[in-house]
Amino acid sequence: MNQLYSSKLLENVVGEFSRLPGIGKKTALRMALHLLRQDEESVRQFGQAVIQLRSEVMYCRDCHNLSDTEVCEICSDPRRDHSIVCVVETVRDVMSIENTMQYQGVYHVLGGVISPMDGIGPADLTVESLEHRISGGTVSEMILALSTTMEGDTTNFYIYRKVKHLPVIISTLARGLAIGDELEYADQVTLGRSIVNRTPFENTFKKLS
Amino acid sequence: MNQLYSSKLLENVVGEFSRLPGIGKKTALRMALHLLRQDEESVRQFGQAVIQLRSEVMYCRDCHNLSDTEVCEICSDPRRDHSIVCVVETVRDVMSIENTMQYQGVYHVLGGVISPMDGIGPADLTVESLEHRISGGTVSEMILALSTTMEGDTTNFYIYRKVKHLPVIISTLARGLAIGDELEYADQVTLGRSIVNRTPFENTFKKLS
Repeated sequence: MNQLYSSKLLENVVGEFSRLPGIGKKTALRMALHLLRQDEESVRQFGQAVIQLRSEVMYCRDCHNLSDTEVCEICSDPRRDHSIVCVVETVRDVMSIENTMQYQGVYHVLGGVISPMDGIGPADLTVESLEHRISGGTVSEMILALSTTMEGDTTNFYIYRKVKHLPVIISTLARGLAIGDELEYADQVTLGRSIVNRTPFENTFKKLS
Repeated sequence: MNQLYSSKLLENVVGEFSRLPGIGKKTALRMALHLLRQDEESVRQFGQAVIQLRSEVMYCRDCHNLSDTEVCEICSDPRRDHSIVCVVETVRDVMSIENTMQYQGVYHVLGGVISPMDGIGPADLTVESLEHRISGGTVSEMILALSTTMEGDTTNFYIYRKVKHLPVIISTLARGLAIGDELEYADQVTLGRSIVNRTPFENTFKKLS
């Protein structure tokens, strides 16, 4: 049954909120009523922040990450190692890797993975821009950090074929047991790969530094 | 650990969303990135709707329900029975009762219940306005539809004492087994009250009409 609102203004806001991912009508109403209890200035700030984000945010000219400036903070930081490029699917992956504080190189945001089922081909991604970057000659290593799915593997292979003739080291994220995992409960494929790709014991100390 | 955002604009919006009830940083980020994928016009509408709601919505002069006009749609509807007033705590309770489509009277939104623990006294609610309405002489029945909590009971009793000298029928919502409940699993208090306040069998048909 359709909810009956006493106010069109309220109905509008509930409608807008409920279009957000994972938000139903009930949660949307709770949010709208919450905002009504806030002072007018902070609600105005809320609305403005949303409008401003969409109208002013840019994508970094070099790495296609979200940025407030033409070149993002990471790409314009001279302390970062510009010779290592980590290729990721989305902006969120950049955040995840940044949060580890273990990476000092730069990124390249593809904007997705090749997925013929969803109609996404290489032309919809920033593969050409990546190729251009790698062929520039200043990049010595490219880390492929895409999902281990069929689409991710396809995209990895596509990029690999595009740049393999260039003098660049192509690496990928280590796959294996997660920290804290017990052997007994690990899946066979992961366990198998972690044996084949076993690493020198000394690396354990290196990672913990 | 604090999430690192590549854009202050994005960080702002994530901050704003995560102040909404039940929304954490991760969900807020998901919402912000979702909005970035929408076209600029619809994001502008989203922001405007929120700002407009807070700045333009009014509370009905008579019943204190949310309204776009000075007197709300329900209070200004001549088809509603203005001699019956249903007293509720919040705007959301009005919506719940309206959704049943079983009530043709009008409402009075108290804005909460008396709760000394939270520092809410009768003066913080619209009790005086209710008293004024009832003493006007056009109301023949007042339905108390507050929560069955200690605070709700206190408020009921407070209102009852304020208006008992007036020629108005004071009723309250029926308490009993919910439709579809099994006796075996009902709590003792509810089951006890449903026996004491048993209703004529004919009423069952009336309610289903």
